[in-house]
Amino acid sequence: MVHVGIIMGSQSDWPTMKHAAEILDALDIPYESKIVSAHRTPDRLWDYGTSAVERGLKVIIAGAGGAAHLPGMVASKTRIPVVGVPVQTKALSGVDSLYSILQMPKGYPVATMAIGPAGAANAGLMAAGILATQDPDIAARLDAWRAALSASIPQEPVDE
Amino acid sequence: MVHVGIIMGSQSDWPTMKHAAEILDALDIPYESKIVSAHRTPDRLWDYGTSAVERGLKVIIAGAGGAAHLPGMVASKTRIPVVGVPVQTKALSGVDSLYSILQMPKGYPVATMAIGPAGAANAGLMAAGILATQDPDIAARLDAWRAALSASIPQEPVDE
Amino acid sequence: MVHVGIIMGSQSDWPTMKHAAEILDALDIPYESKIVSAHRTPDRLWDYGTSAVERGLKVIIAGAGGAAHLPGMVASKTRIPVVGVPVQTKALSGVDSLYSILQMPKGYPVATMAIGPAGAANAGLMAAGILATQDPDIAARLDAWRAALSASIPQEPVDE
Amino acid sequence: MVHVGIIMGSQSDWPTMKHAAEILDALDIPYESKIVSAHRTPDRLWDYGTSAVERGLKVIIAGAGGAAHLPGMVASKTRIPVVGVPVQTKALSGVDSLYSILQMPKGYPVATMAIGPAGAANAGLMAAGILATQDPDIAARLDAWRAALSASIPQEPVDE
Amino acid sequence: MVHVGIIMGSQSDWPTMKHAAEILDALDIPYESKIVSAHRTPDRLWDYGTSAVERGLKVIIAGAGGAAHLPGMVASKTRIPVVGVPVQTKALSGVDSLYSILQMPKGYPVATMAIGPAGAANAGLMAAGILATQDPDIAARLDAWRAALSASIPQEPVDE
Amino acid sequence: MVHVGIIMGSQSDWPTMKHAAEILDALDIPYESKIVSAHRTPDRLWDYGTSAVERGLKVIIAGAGGAAHLPGMVASKTRIPVVGVPVQTKALSGVDSLYSILQMPKGYPVATMAIGPAGAANAGLMAAGILATQDPDIAARLDAWRAALSASIPQEPVDE
Amino acid sequence: MVHVGIIMGSQSDWPTMKHAAEILDALDIPYESKIVSAHRTPDRLWDYGTSAVERGLKVIIAGAGGAAHLPGMVASKTRIPVVGVPVQTKALSGVDSLYSILQMPKGYPVATMAIGPAGAANAGLMAAGILATQDPDIAARLDAWRAALSASIPQEPVDE
Amino acid sequence: MVHVGIIMGSQSDWPTMKHAAEILDALDIPYESKIVSAHRTPDRLWDYGTSAVERGLKVIIAGAGGAAHLPGMVASKTRIPVVGVPVQTKALSGVDSLYSILQMPKGYPVATMAIGPAGAANAGLMAAGILATQDPDIAARLDAWRAALSASIPQEPVDE
Repeated sequence: MVHVGIIMGSQSDWPTMKHAAEILDALDIPYESKIVSAHRTPDRLWDYGTSAVERGLKVIIAGAGGAAHLPGMVASKTRIPVVGVPVQTKALSGVDSLYSILQMPKGYPVATMAIGPAGAANAGLMAAGILATQDPDIAARLDAWRAALSASIPQEPVDE
Repeated sequence: MVHVGIIMGSQSDWPTMKHAAEILDALDIPYESKIVSAHRTPDRLWDYGTSAVERGLKVIIAGAGGAAHLPGMVASKTRIPVVGVPVQTKALSGVDSLYSILQMPKGYPVATMAIGPAGAANAGLMAAGILATQDPDIAARLDAWRAALSASIPQEPVDE
Repeated sequence: MVHVGIIMGSQSDWPTMKHAAEILDALDIPYESKIVSAHRTPDRLWDYGTSAVERGLKVIIAGAGGAAHLPGMVASKTRIPVVGVPVQTKALSGVDSLYSILQMPKGYPVATMAIGPAGAANAGLMAAGILATQDPDIAARLDAWRAALSASIPQEPVDE
Repeated sequence: MVHVGIIMGSQSDWPTMKHAAEILDALDIPYESKIVSAHRTPDRLWDYGTSAVERGLKVIIAGAGGAAHLPGMVASKTRIPVVGVPVQTKALSGVDSLYSILQMPKGYPVATMAIGPAGAANAGLMAAGILATQDPDIAARLDAWRAALSASIPQEPVDE
Repeated sequence: MVHVGIIMGSQSDWPTMKHAAEILDALDIPYESKIVSAHRTPDRLWDYGTSAVERGLKVIIAGAGGAAHLPGMVASKTRIPVVGVPVQTKALSGVDSLYSILQMPKGYPVATMAIGPAGAANAGLMAAGILATQDPDIAARLDAWRAALSASIPQEPVDE
Repeated sequence: MVHVGIIMGSQSDWPTMKHAAEILDALDIPYESKIVSAHRTPDRLWDYGTSAVERGLKVIIAGAGGAAHLPGMVASKTRIPVVGVPVQTKALSGVDSLYSILQMPKGYPVATMAIGPAGAANAGLMAAGILATQDPDIAARLDAWRAALSASIPQEPVDE
Repeated sequence: MVHVGIIMGSQSDWPTMKHAAEILDALDIPYESKIVSAHRTPDRLWDYGTSAVERGLKVIIAGAGGAAHLPGMVASKTRIPVVGVPVQTKALSGVDSLYSILQMPKGYPVATMAIGPAGAANAGLMAAGILATQDPDIAARLDAWRAALSASIPQEPVDE
Repeated sequence: MVHVGIIMGSQSDWPTMKHAAEILDALDIPYESKIVSAHRTPDRLWDYGTSAVERGLKVIIAGAGGAAHLPGMVASKTRIPVVGVPVQTKALSGVDSLYSILQMPKGYPVATMAIGPAGAANAGLMAAGILATQDPDIAARLDAWRAALSASIPQEPVDE
């Protein structure tokens, strides 16, 4: 059963959001990835949000840029944790995306990640961390992934 | 028939948004004012947007603060011009509201006004300006309002 | 009769502003496009604003960068709705253009769009939306354009 | 057993962070609240992070202001989801807190909430949402809380 | 003959702009002060700019807040040096005023001062400095004012 | 006699500051251009400022980037009008230069121009405008330059 | 012998800068405190910087607001470590002070502290830390001060 | 004996931080350079901080980007002066790094340098300046380096 859904506002968000997918692949966590535009396909957003619980989703990762209403609107339609990824934009560098995703009113949290690909990767890890609270296998794989990351750091910088 | 709808995300936006209402009162333009929260009452938002044309609305004024998804989400549900008012916020002074309302993707414009009460008043005037393109009476009243404003400016500043 | 005027502060704004023209072309809405510099040709601006009503214009789209006084100054000379497009700038990324266009005082609204080409395209759509409130043919074409945009969104992202 | 820990950098963060506690109280979810200063009590932070899994914690809510290293440093010491709350500050209004909490490198996500009390309340709701993915009773209480919030919104604004 | 004109967009700018007047008073430099709103009284602005040379003005001090088009528009109508004062605003703290005044395109400089009252006082001093390049009496009075300011600085701070 | 001095903090500022020189060349106004680093050659700055009046300078154009202390420090050493040009910087885009030049305390104005080359060109024009208040030949040349600029604006944008 | 000098641009900086003095008092480190205005008393600044080494100073703490040239200009006149404190300002909240102090060019570092009183206190601690590298008594007192601070942190927050 | 330690959060910081090393090389001051990641190798950070005094370090230069917790966390573990270098980042240009490093709470100063390579070079010079307060040879070399820098400035800019 798929517990993680990755959604994004447009195909142009995929180069950012695929970093979430890569983490989930690395941790052997199944996921689905969909384009759900808050403005262009609001009904798709509605359906995605309202069916999320019954479809068995446990975490939704939502990435968007600019006005970036997708993460917050999904959060208004489901109690499932929504992890938001602000996609970097041209004029405002993603600060627009960030504020739109972050500044949710009381009642509808979005777990906001850093702007851009690192934030998307961390969204995958946050999803894994949430699942790990109830799945010892994922917890073990996440621990191993973290240990490997720590072990990969060299002692000294080198000229390249 | 009411051609202008004023909607806002919460009762706390009214001290700002009433400045739009006051302008419409001054110009003798009927309007309705509703609380429509994008996150707390998404279905109300849906209904408002999808019924706007058939209900005869010609302009929607939407005010919101913070993540401020209301103006953009309504704009995704109706072709009627949406005029957005960024409400000033505590930590980010309304820049969050502004970016969320302004930075809409291609396809779904929101006519964004200045942050705060002056922006709300101007939303009323923008609504009047749109109606004036097809209603000579409103055009005449708007011209008179503008002339009165210009005439009210004193020649010299005074100590107060 | 031409109901939409596109004006801009300089030839260098055209790569941005042509996105407004392209939308109007796609919706089969006639328009004129002019260079009207607030500072270099203030008399041209004056004439444009004061003659707009009698010339039959119903919407003015005005793009400018930096100090970007064009949209607001035209709005002071005519009651016709002015849609402002902040052109992206080198040092301040268009935030200067945005603030100059957006922060108009009570009395003279400018319907501000997103920074850059998406904002210009949306200015075209906002003009169409305003005309659609009084022209069923334009309303139908705008509805079709919006439906086509929605229908164009794929279900899933793909690697490119 | 306590599954949620609320930690904060100083007593002065409590007026913000107590909004997380109030939500957890309302949802009948037990929690502990501790002062853990990243800089003044780094060893306490170390112990808190390294013992979190074995102590049975499932979510850590961490609030801090200014350099705000607490959420990120705890996230480096445990795989348990960390929800970060940027506390508003005097000179930089909490943007300093926000950037320090949000911009975590790949590997160590912090689920960042809005700046200030609304963000703290949402941190409580995010914790509840995470627990709800595995606890039907909490899910039911969270659904009821959300429904009550939606039902509380009046139809029209009123002068106050 | 009056060589310095102080203009401002509204009566509400006077508490800021009077600091320019006070400096000119202290330096015994005659001036006029007028309200000239770029948007509400554009014709007044036009007349002021086009008649400035023949009226004998040598420096124009122009203060405005928000979109703040006054200084730049006057600069487009006259070659006389325009000194711009960004008035502090509520939501954006005068950064909007600053960008609108500062970011003038090539051809039409505005000598921008600091935001707020200190900037207005400095506008008076800049006007004096310009006049001092051609009037030895003003140069002497300006030198004396500067010397007195320097002499007024105590050696050590004191508790108050 | 040379009435205009162009100074800058380093050779790397010249690609920006030469736009001031080009304007002065076009207006046939003699000038000198020097490198005067506030931090690396503080004594040179001291000498430049203290000798400016007796050397016959009437305007000093000072460009700098980053901490950008040059314009303000020269302004503290001479009553001659100082026109400041914020040079664009890598990380902060010249906002650092701007704030350091602009936010001078009461007593020591710097006539701040736009960030980058357009600001440098305008510094040349501001210098010309100041000299024009006392030199009819320069006034005539400046009027002609402005008229030529206005006359150069085409009526319509063209695809390029 | 006094090894630490506290200087500030004006009496109005003292409410901020006295927090540095209080720390030095608490650590029993002698210091002098002077008003040295970069713009109003540039010669005083020159003398302070050039005589610092021979007068036996080992650290200079310099606080200033706005254009805030004092720390950087002193750093250009002496090799002694300069610790800069950005004083909070009205319109720009001290970001102007920060950028002016921080963004020094290669060659002339200023050890910049946080904006406002906490930054001033930390300037005192940084001075102590520098002296502690060569004075075991100060090192011991600084260790004790830090230990006392750590020990003062309560375990749990309390309602107040 | 090595008195200066250069640490950084990752290999990717080295192109920035090597400018600190180059300055120390030029001044003939021995140093060590290490990768110490606050999040990936927190124990390494712990050890580095707690052993710094006994290992004879007198200054620690710490560079990091984004959340940038390294400088502040090391400062919490040792009384030795920590000089922080904000590394420029992609989306937020290093303002995130800056705020995380700068805005330390009372008790734990970090001597923050300018964003990017110039800041790293200045970190090297600040370290030299601190050592120079107790080592006349380093003082002499630092004086010579500064004198050479001043002497290298040409009198006039040249076209390149």
